[in-house]
Amino acid sequence: MAAFRANGIITLTTDFGAREPFVGIMKGVMLGHAPHLRFIDMAHEVSAFQPVEAGFWLAHAFRYFPAGTLHVAVVDPGVGTPRALLVAMSGEQALLAPDNGLLAPLAARGKIDRIIRIDNTRLVKFGVSDVSATFHGRDVFAPLAAAIAANRCDPADLGPEVTSIEQGGWAATGQRTDGGIEGAVVVVDRFGNLISNIESSAVVALALPTVLIAGLRVPLKRTYGDARPGEYLGVINSFDVLEVAQSRGNAAQGLKLAVGAPISVVSGVPDPQFRRS
Amino acid sequence: MAAFRANGIITLTTDFGAREPFVGIMKGVMLGHAPHLRFIDMAHEVSAFQPVEAGFWLAHAFRYFPAGTLHVAVVDPGVGTPRALLVAMSGEQALLAPDNGLLAPLAARGKIDRIIRIDNTRLVKFGVSDVSATFHGRDVFAPLAAAIAANRCDPADLGPEVTSIEQGGWAATGQRTDGGIEGAVVVVDRFGNLISNIESSAVVALALPTVLIAGLRVPLKRTYGDARPGEYLGVINSFDVLEVAQSRGNAAQGLKLAVGAPISVVSGVPDPQFRRS
Amino acid sequence: MAAFRANGIITLTTDFGAREPFVGIMKGVMLGHAPHLRFIDMAHEVSAFQPVEAGFWLAHAFRYFPAGTLHVAVVDPGVGTPRALLVAMSGEQALLAPDNGLLAPLAARGKIDRIIRIDNTRLVKFGVSDVSATFHGRDVFAPLAAAIAANRCDPADLGPEVTSIEQGGWAATGQRTDGGIEGAVVVVDRFGNLISNIESSAVVALALPTVLIAGLRVPLKRTYGDARPGEYLGVINSFDVLEVAQSRGNAAQGLKLAVGAPISVVSGVPDPQFRRS
Repeated sequence: MAAFRANGIITLTTDFGAREPFVGIMKGVMLGHAPHLRFIDMAHEVSAFQPVEAGFWLAHAFRYFPAGTLHVAVVDPGVGTPRALLVAMSGEQALLAPDNGLLAPLAARGKIDRIIRIDNTRLVKFGVSDVSATFHGRDVFAPLAAAIAANRCDPADLGPEVTSIEQGGWAATGQRTDGGIEGAVVVVDRFGNLISNIESSAVVALALPTVLIAGLRVPLKRTYGDARPGEYLGVINSFDVLEVAQSRGNAAQGLKLAVGAPISVVSGVPDPQFRRS
Repeated sequence: MAAFRANGIITLTTDFGAREPFVGIMKGVMLGHAPHLRFIDMAHEVSAFQPVEAGFWLAHAFRYFPAGTLHVAVVDPGVGTPRALLVAMSGEQALLAPDNGLLAPLAARGKIDRIIRIDNTRLVKFGVSDVSATFHGRDVFAPLAAAIAANRCDPADLGPEVTSIEQGGWAATGQRTDGGIEGAVVVVDRFGNLISNIESSAVVALALPTVLIAGLRVPLKRTYGDARPGEYLGVINSFDVLEVAQSRGNAAQGLKLAVGAPISVVSGVPDPQFRRS
Repeated sequence: MAAFRANGIITLTTDFGAREPFVGIMKGVMLGHAPHLRFIDMAHEVSAFQPVEAGFWLAHAFRYFPAGTLHVAVVDPGVGTPRALLVAMSGEQALLAPDNGLLAPLAARGKIDRIIRIDNTRLVKFGVSDVSATFHGRDVFAPLAAAIAANRCDPADLGPEVTSIEQGGWAATGQRTDGGIEGAVVVVDRFGNLISNIESSAVVALALPTVLIAGLRVPLKRTYGDARPGEYLGVINSFDVLEVAQSRGNAAQGLKLAVGAPISVVSGVPDPQFRRS
């Protein structure tokens, strides 16, 4: 297992938005502990109360960062309850998140080498004290992240290693059936694209794959630009999973679908009369 | 009084949003004056035309930053009119804002040591010239902030000290009455939480405090997670004031309330038949 | 022509928003190539599918940045189709954008010294390989931008110089007529201000200019604060073009207007009976 050695870069993924200074306050606290830290905002408008959505994006985003980056995710509807914090090690990078399903998409992809469950009694030396009941981003995550990202602590010293984490309702990878693959929409992005849990490796194994969603047969295209404006299309997106989009439109609105909607891929052509002989 | 000596960090609080490059332009101007400056975004979606909302957040956020930080706030519906700019010194930090109520919440909390009213005639040497009528963030705040944050000027040299500033309609702290405390909603956050001007010190002085809002009696809980989904609750939030939330919901929408709504706290139990003997 | 020599600052203009980590991923890729780079977010909520809106803002924003800044714009509905990428040199700064109209507003203002059309076959040495069909921001723009901003390549070596670029429907500057100037709304900002393609130089040439829009005569004022709350007004905005605003309101909503709406300026007073003798 590659070792994590912090490079001073911290990414932040939250549901805090830009209307209040919650993200700014976290950065202020971290700079107070370690003025050299650098911050990259990953996403601050992820769905509140949907830790797995944040986890999906983080699972697909973190690998693009340099070795030594610490990724901090605070989507935490259970703040103030006894849910634990986790530090996950993945290659030469580390992630800090609540144990509420946020890390489930990463674990499902087999990308985690080791998970430490934080023992809160060990945090006092890193400035974690006077903890509010409602803003652990400021009072716990920030001082702890600063300590990790400044190489002032070894995550392995922060608590016991664990092998089981909360799943938070994360839907497993799409299932193969006789006729093809059955899955579900797991995330809707801001363009209304319907992102599924069906991976490209399963799709490419089918002859003439066609997407079934909302009672429609939708063609699989190489890119959004290959469809006419208004047309629905399936694409293998840049994170190697199937998504359904509407060219220059909003598929979620157009099809009236949301997270959890069934989506499947079958082999074959749209209409029997055009079947190749 | 502690002295302000700039550390090169500037925080930015605006109503400029992320649809136009107004914040980016301000940073470009500041980098042109002092390339070593570092920026932390506090909040850029605060309510337009509500300087006191920005001021409420800034009053509660600034103290988490390192000594030497300059906080710049541009929520300025009076841009182009003769409203003054202020520099406020608070401990080892400084704040730059228009005199329109934005600093009233900070002043009400007794956190300001000294306020300087900027004399515009003294700004030419810091690159303030060719001022537009509509974008002082770029033409005045940015060059002035760069000069302060680069230790190129002493704020005390920028104008006279003043002791009275605009209040912008800022509601004073909740008032004690015979039956408890009467206050008002002063900010609604993006989760729909109704944040009041009732401070925790007043609430904890009451026996069995219960919140009255929108004709409802709402229990006071330690944290959001202590309520059932959908339930309304009062909490002392992480900034030590009373707020009313709906667990996993939006209290402002659910109760149809906005800034200004009355909120009070009384001592006692919801129903006399359960009164302790 | 001034030479571009990178200063390590990259600005980013996209339609990626803050709900997914697309901007963060681009920064991660760039830091992987050149850890010293610094990023300034210009705007990430520009209208999807409206490259010219992004281009309008970039054309007015870029000049406020220090010499050596690289401006990267990814508003790219044609991603995955054979549209080219362009590097434009303007004074001592450079811009990287798709050839889809995004640079048309800049070119219309005569601000571009030279345009290079990227030859994709020359990008392999800068880490551009394994290109997805849908996220060129990550797979092409980011590694290429890192190479340019780290002075690892001369843009002139990346492809042929071109003199013609896509216009993307960009409306030319407002036209002078006998009675005044006729133009159109080219951008609506987040406050609902209606920004036109009528430049201040044309307006100031008229005696007693009055704005005609949506069947109304709207007075030209010096600043928003010179109108009463609710009143419509024309102003020469901070980018030296005419815009129509509603004081403390939203002109686009109030007048039910959008991009493309006609707007004109005439010389004269609103009503003949008040004509000066």
